[in-house]
Amino acid sequence: MQAELSIEEQVGLIRRGTAEIISETELAQKLETAKTEKRPLRIKLGLDPTAPDIHLGIAVVLRKLRQFQDLGHEVILIIGDFTATIGDPSGKSKTRPQLTAEEVKHNAKTYADQYCMILDEDKTRVVFNSEWLDEMSFADVIRLSAQTTVARILERDDFTNRLQDGASIGMHELLYPICQGYDSVVLEADVEMGGTDQKFNILMGRDLQRAYDQEPQVTLLMPLLVGLDGAEKMSKSLGNYVGIYEPAPEMYAKLMSIPDELMSTYFELATDVPLDEIRAFEVQLASGSVHPKTVKQRLAREIVTIYHDADAAQAAEAEFDRVHRDRQLPDDLPEVVIPASSLTDGKIWIAHLMQQAGFAQSSSDARRLVQQGGVRIDGDRITDPALEVSLQGEVILQVGKRRFAKLLV
Amino acid sequence: MQAELSIEEQVGLIRRGTAEIISETELAQKLETAKTEKRPLRIKLGLDPTAPDIHLGIAVVLRKLRQFQDLGHEVILIIGDFTATIGDPSGKSKTRPQLTAEEVKHNAKTYADQYCMILDEDKTRVVFNSEWLDEMSFADVIRLSAQTTVARILERDDFTNRLQDGASIGMHELLYPICQGYDSVVLEADVEMGGTDQKFNILMGRDLQRAYDQEPQVTLLMPLLVGLDGAEKMSKSLGNYVGIYEPAPEMYAKLMSIPDELMSTYFELATDVPLDEIRAFEVQLASGSVHPKTVKQRLAREIVTIYHDADAAQAAEAEFDRVHRDRQLPDDLPEVVIPASSLTDGKIWIAHLMQQAGFAQSSSDARRLVQQGGVRIDGDRITDPALEVSLQGEVILQVGKRRFAKLLV
Repeated sequence: MQAELSIEEQVGLIRRGTAEIISETELAQKLETAKTEKRPLRIKLGLDPTAPDIHLGIAVVLRKLRQFQDLGHEVILIIGDFTATIGDPSGKSKTRPQLTAEEVKHNAKTYADQYCMILDEDKTRVVFNSEWLDEMSFADVIRLSAQTTVARILERDDFTNRLQDGASIGMHELLYPICQGYDSVVLEADVEMGGTDQKFNILMGRDLQRAYDQEPQVTLLMPLLVGLDGAEKMSKSLGNYVGIYEPAPEMYAKLMSIPDELMSTYFELATDVPLDEIRAFEVQLASGSVHPKTVKQRLAREIVTIYHDADAAQAAEAEFDRVHRDRQLPDDLPEVVIPASSLTDGKIWIAHLMQQAGFAQSSSDARRLVQQGGVRIDGDRITDPALEVSLQGEVILQVGKRRFAKLLV
Repeated sequence: MQAELSIEEQVGLIRRGTAEIISETELAQKLETAKTEKRPLRIKLGLDPTAPDIHLGIAVVLRKLRQFQDLGHEVILIIGDFTATIGDPSGKSKTRPQLTAEEVKHNAKTYADQYCMILDEDKTRVVFNSEWLDEMSFADVIRLSAQTTVARILERDDFTNRLQDGASIGMHELLYPICQGYDSVVLEADVEMGGTDQKFNILMGRDLQRAYDQEPQVTLLMPLLVGLDGAEKMSKSLGNYVGIYEPAPEMYAKLMSIPDELMSTYFELATDVPLDEIRAFEVQLASGSVHPKTVKQRLAREIVTIYHDADAAQAAEAEFDRVHRDRQLPDDLPEVVIPASSLTDGKIWIAHLMQQAGFAQSSSDARRLVQQGGVRIDGDRITDPALEVSLQGEVILQVGKRRFAKLLV
């Protein structure tokens, strides 16, 4: 069906949710060429094989790739094993572990399994860049490096900042963008996708392709999805993520916890809900004619449906409602009396409260539970481990999914 | 005999004429170690195989190497064929021609022949850095580059200037100092020599050796010898040089043409005349108790003696005196009458004068002869091709060694 779309309609479809396309005109030309020559475009995505665990943030890019596949194009996933097997040769960075060829293979396999969830396997090719980069000699590297300038490389935001801060940049780091750019030359990529943080590296591919007399790849940048905390980019290490393999109830509950301001972005980047409808929600929310929770429920259902199915989404919603909205608390809800002497101005630190309820063994234990997002007061998730809880009347403390207590002073 | 010198005396000997030693303490330690372990030090000099033609400027470094050999040490000449066979991969520079392996071999042979003039062949090893650099893979280059930082490389004066000027530096240019530095690692060099313009590259060798747990090489920098013009560094392309293979009379005559201020430096860097004696000349010259020409004759004789012998130096002096000082002109000196109509205010352009005398076929021919330093008026060398010659009374025009004319108006 989508194959019948006009070029303009195709560009419109691809434009949704993108942060930047360099350039739309070139994209339209590429789509036109593909149509005329009846050949699929090669859509490239580079992947670091260190941490295979796909969450909604990474899915933003993968779902855009899937759109290209649905329009008939080919996706090439490049596993950056060349640098991963080198690790950090300066020995300074712990975030760049050196992987063995075996680990890379294993991670790539895991990736491939996870990608199938979103991508069309028949239109996906997985390649390892060690295949060509391992073959390059020092002389080849010199010839390749000559295709760009120091000024061009140092333009990269984080290089500029680090040079100005006097922080040291290892000489080898300048070679990494060149590796990534050269991958595009070897694959003759038509489009390279990535997050906005990849802009420089992807533009390097354009430069090198030009130097090798190729038509430069279109650069298609997706915004970095903000995590559940509403503050940082979604990432596994920050714990503010929704993994695409999480069980439906967890996924649903996590999505219900995002700040209201994020709903629009999540709809646009993480669902297929038409833009018109999203804009309509925005209007309704602004005028107060719809409750934010109603809209958020729709969002959570949409996303759970993508990674599970509609039934699972309904069931997750029912469970969530039972526990959170209807406050249908367990029958055997234990009561805990907090001595007034523990309060200051009627308040008590959440960590002490949890210890007194017997739900935490220490303040640091309590802090960890809060940071993991598993602690609720009267059904509202607590995010601040320094919170002073006001104890007036009964308060329901929940830790994890199954531990509840009714607190009395 | 020199082997009997104390370490302190050896350091004193080596110090002569150097611009900088990093550091003298380390040099003394290296000499001490060599003595204790009864092993020669490895003294490294990198050579660009593009233009083999040794002049007094290059000889300054070679003569210092010879001193090391006379103290029992080994000289390693590294022919930088690795980058020479790449040429300038950006295609921008004409000063970095791409050489074939055959040309490199031929040039290296020519070098070797010329070096024998100054170095002790038995204590000289010639190696090509392609031997190890050709073997390096991209991954090796990344590991090697990680041993230094961008800031360190960009410290290099000309890089800093070019970046500030907005002039583009090819990324590959940052790799060249790393090549040179790595050569020191491979050869486990104890000392690397070079002109002051090589300071950065030689220091890079120290950095890389440290990264490879080697004792860093001593950096020994010689000043760049100023050429015959008293202004620019001596170089073949500027024409202000004395080749070590030039015939004794040319060599002598060229040396007699240097500005008086240069005599001291030439004595120190290009002869073995003891420093005490040189200082004594300086005092005598300052007080006017000796004529500069007398001192310059001594200088010219000393240098000609090094590259020819004492007899050749005497003969060259005799010929020079005959032609230049005593003005013993050839017997058959032809007379040329210049018509007064050719003069303006009693003067005539040197190029026209040469054409009228039949010594130049055109103005550009005349200009070339002047620029080559082969034209004299009354025994004084002409350097300005725009010179207007005043013709009052007889004037002797000389072009080359054998063509003379007595000019009359």
